Amino acid sequence: MEWKVDREADKPLYQQIFEYIEEKISYGEYPPGSLLPSERKLAQQLNVNRMTIAHVYDELQASGLVERKKGSGTRVSSHKWGILPKGVTNWRKYIEGGSFIPSYPLIRRIRGEAKVMEGGYNLASGKLSSDLFPTDYLQSILSEYTFPTDLGYEHPQGLLSLRETIASYVKTYHNIHTTSSSVLITSGAQQALHLITQCLLNPGDAVAIEAPSYFYSLPLFQSAGLRIFGLPVDSEGMNPDDIMTLYKKHKIRMIFLNPTYHSPTGAILSSTRRLQVLEIAAELGIPIVEDDPVSLLSFDNEQHSPIKSFDRNGNVLYVGSLSKVIGSSLRIGWLIGPQSVINRLADAREQIDFGLSVFPQIIANLLLQSSEYPKHLEFLRQELLERRNEMLSALQDLLGDKIEFTIPKGGFFIWCKLNKSVDDQKLVEAGIKHKILFMPGSVYGSPNGYVRLTFAHLKKESIRDAVSQFAEVLNQV
Amino acid sequence: MEWKVDREADKPLYQQIFEYIEEKISYGEYPPGSLLPSERKLAQQLNVNRMTIAHVYDELQASGLVERKKGSGTRVSSHKWGILPKGVTNWRKYIEGGSFIPSYPLIRRIRGEAKVMEGGYNLASGKLSSDLFPTDYLQSILSEYTFPTDLGYEHPQGLLSLRETIASYVKTYHNIHTTSSSVLITSGAQQALHLITQCLLNPGDAVAIEAPSYFYSLPLFQSAGLRIFGLPVDSEGMNPDDIMTLYKKHKIRMIFLNPTYHSPTGAILSSTRRLQVLEIAAELGIPIVEDDPVSLLSFDNEQHSPIKSFDRNGNVLYVGSLSKVIGSSLRIGWLIGPQSVINRLADAREQIDFGLSVFPQIIANLLLQSSEYPKHLEFLRQELLERRNEMLSALQDLLGDKIEFTIPKGGFFIWCKLNKSVDDQKLVEAGIKHKILFMPGSVYGSPNGYVRLTFAHLKKESIRDAVSQFAEVLNQV
Repeated sequence: MEWKVDREADKPLYQQIFEYIEEKISYGEYPPGSLLPSERKLAQQLNVNRMTIAHVYDELQASGLVERKKGSGTRVSSHKWGILPKGVTNWRKYIEGGSFIPSYPLIRRIRGEAKVMEGGYNLASGKLSSDLFPTDYLQSILSEYTFPTDLGYEHPQGLLSLRETIASYVKTYHNIHTTSSSVLITSGAQQALHLITQCLLNPGDAVAIEAPSYFYSLPLFQSAGLRIFGLPVDSEGMNPDDIMTLYKKHKIRMIFLNPTYHSPTGAILSSTRRLQVLEIAAELGIPIVEDDPVSLLSFDNEQHSPIKSFDRNGNVLYVGSLSKVIGSSLRIGWLIGPQSVINRLADAREQIDFGLSVFPQIIANLLLQSSEYPKHLEFLRQELLERRNEMLSALQDLLGDKIEFTIPKGGFFIWCKLNKSVDDQKLVEAGIKHKILFMPGSVYGSPNGYVRLTFAHLKKESIRDAVSQFAEVLNQV
Repeated sequence: MEWKVDREADKPLYQQIFEYIEEKISYGEYPPGSLLPSERKLAQQLNVNRMTIAHVYDELQASGLVERKKGSGTRVSSHKWGILPKGVTNWRKYIEGGSFIPSYPLIRRIRGEAKVMEGGYNLASGKLSSDLFPTDYLQSILSEYTFPTDLGYEHPQGLLSLRETIASYVKTYHNIHTTSSSVLITSGAQQALHLITQCLLNPGDAVAIEAPSYFYSLPLFQSAGLRIFGLPVDSEGMNPDDIMTLYKKHKIRMIFLNPTYHSPTGAILSSTRRLQVLEIAAELGIPIVEDDPVSLLSFDNEQHSPIKSFDRNGNVLYVGSLSKVIGSSLRIGWLIGPQSVINRLADAREQIDFGLSVFPQIIANLLLQSSEYPKHLEFLRQELLERRNEMLSALQDLLGDKIEFTIPKGGFFIWCKLNKSVDDQKLVEAGIKHKILFMPGSVYGSPNGYVRLTFAHLKKESIRDAVSQFAEVLNQV
């Protein structure tokens, strides 16, 4: 809830809140019959005393705007407002329908909290800290740039000049050979995955993903009606032999992998295994979707060539993005694959959103073509390395005997195993109470007792304090 | 196909094309077993003699890269390339799957042609002519603007400042009362419709749309598995009584309307009918989706208040957009409705694309808040009126006895009824031959013999010539 009470105003708080809700009811934002938030919840959201809300709800009831029943909450009266007293849509019947499965409650809880939390630390987000966004470099590029007068031409695959830049970018940085006609610009990696699951697979199809994997946290697989099977991850990533096993058992039709600085574990699929995966998948005739968001963020100068760079048969759909190297607010990702696949997805994409805005595409193109870009990457690696080190040392100092953790060689995340058994739900709630957010392993398909901590989302100077808050939470559960 | 032969180069054309295809095969863009374009089609795409392509394909065959069989075309050899000779994905099995239905062949044909056509006139596009995009005004705003350093915070409903601007915008221009928490920013109106059909309806549900309607041209209804029933449109729009009839027969669950300057007919739903529709829908408890892209583009200074402006019960989901008043390259649309619905759709939207880029949102916000915006609107109305008049007079002069047409009071389109019976498919093909594109009525659910012409996509000075080309096409079929 973005509206806030005005504590400086002359008008009493309960009066402000009364008018706010009255307005929402009269605008149809709370339709007749709909449930208002509980007193407790609204008090929390607006950061006021619960008695204030009780007062507001009493007034709303007295004025006939709402009806209250013990045990069933406060509802907007169904015969008070509007020119049409008779009927009203039962929205609940609509909201509960549809093929899109809502996000997992625990993730919704954490994201919801992240939106309203004041102060505290967010170690849950997979987003780059906004202070690392290259604002100055963007500003200086834009100030010299003249927008073309002809902004009308849009190709369903995305701006041609950006696709050409991406084709050359993946060659330079990833040794992937492609041409602009095999590149689809997407709204981040997320949309690429959405298009693949919705357009290339059928409900009931089986797919393989790493276990644990952040893919588990994405309801888009369930929304597409897919059955998911796990490929356990060890320190060298998943084991290619497991693909064969899953194929025999479940006839899997696609493999989703995140081979470099895997989320959440940080594992790197070894190069031997990369080749094996490619070979096995080719033999079985099933495609690989390779998600590669952070491989450029290496802390040891080692480059890990994507599986796609070895693919000569068009068996790999490669997904890249600028979200983790520039910022997710740009929403620029790409999908590289055989032309027939790209054409099919570009067509579907026109139905979904009619293509991406030309502006982030122009901006991305300017950023990538600028000679500042390699410097930005180097700066980012250095910054992230320092934040990683800060978090590692804080974890060692403050929780050395209570958790085990990996030392990631790149990326955003530290994967922690707690030495005592805890309930993930309770752990998250305790964290929220302490204004410290993190991702419990269960949302990635792990058993209880694991936690993924992001070091890329906080400033370096906050990290030790955040870890100490986290330690406090751990001590209490 | 964006690659072009270089006619200035020393290298012979066939050699250039040979290398281009060889490259695509080696990159996996044409995977083993995949079909190459026919000689005729490729010759057309690359604008070269068919004999040249025949030569290229002969060479590719001689080198073992492709295999040719009489009657089944030219395929990439399945055992020539790559480190993995054994297997390859049968992409066709994947491409033909998925729940997203491809665009209608006739629309794909027209859009495909629009992309490659050199010269000629596009009267088919629903997009505003790019020379009407307010480039100068954007440039002057951006040159003074400093991007915030904190671009990290993104709300799943969209940038708060833009949502606040939209809430005040719809109040000023449409007399719709709402607050920022009931606004969802979408990638144009298209994404709003996509979210509604995917998240609030179930496969098999029946919905009502105007007949004819541009909604027919959107495969997203079929993609969501919906059954569509038509509400015939006369000069005052659809007839509200028909809603009851459809409800009794098919138990329709949602009504999709485009009440002002309806596409394709230009009809305006009368204000009496607007109230009736609202009343009937409320009585039946089924929601209305009101798509309102062009109501500000009035040629007679009359404003038609959206159905949403009379809705006090939250029965209407209102869809607006800047695509037709600023430019579709911005990709900014919005959905206004009860908060519970907006929350549900915002959650689904995070799965689909993780939200919109912050840049077009910042730009849209600057454009709407600027004092230049009302001037731009006035300029646009004047420009479109002149283009409409130019097209009307050309139609009267050149085709007065061969077609009947409406005189739209706003918007983009003139709806024409041909006096002779023609086959839509043949008409479109004849148009393509003459490099003149238009939308046949059948894609909107009309019988053959209707055509929608856009006057908003061409410069005024081209319109008469375009109509004369169109007349030529009509004479020939």
